[in-house]
Amino acid sequence: MERLSEKQIEQQLEALEGWSLEDEKWIVKKYRFKQYLDGIDFVKSIADRSEEVQHHPLISIDYKLITVKLSSWKAKGLTDLDFQLAADYDRLYR
Amino acid sequence: MERLSEKQIEQQLEALEGWSLEDEKWIVKKYRFKQYLDGIDFVKSIADRSEEVQHHPLISIDYKLITVKLSSWKAKGLTDLDFQLAADYDRLYR
Repeated sequence: MERLSEKQIEQQLEALEGWSLEDEKWIVKKYRFKQYLDGIDFVKSIADRSEEVQHHPLISIDYKLITVKLSSWKAKGLTDLDFQLAADYDRLYR
Repeated sequence: MERLSEKQIEQQLEALEGWSLEDEKWIVKKYRFKQYLDGIDFVKSIADRSEEVQHHPLISIDYKLITVKLSSWKAKGLTDLDFQLAADYDRLYR
């Protein structure tokens, strides 16, 4: 997959909610949960989805707050795959 | 639970394998997995155990590497509970 340009990244970000750009090569979102184990179930579901496409986010779990970061290290930046997964995670959250 | 002294922390750390002290108030360990989803299952199992005792670690997932950090914020340091959970996580890992 090809690395997206700054303008393409901007456009893709506008189509999503709650995602932001970090260090020009990561997109990041924090998801909040009412129950701790609901957050853990969410981690399991996004991990399953990520394994299917062999593209794995960084995930951090701070009690009921889950932070997810996506980047495509092979492309040294962001690709369409990152934004596809971001939209998938949002669907799984809803 | 009472905060442990430096000496108590040292003794408790010696009884564990692979845990280290960070910033004087955290104990940290990195667990490696051969399969991504095995790491995710481990996260689920340590989360279940942590929820039982209502004491939750920071967890970060970087592909097959899972980092776990424990501290007792109410005690502003480390307590016996942190070391009990650390031993529990090691048992779940084995």
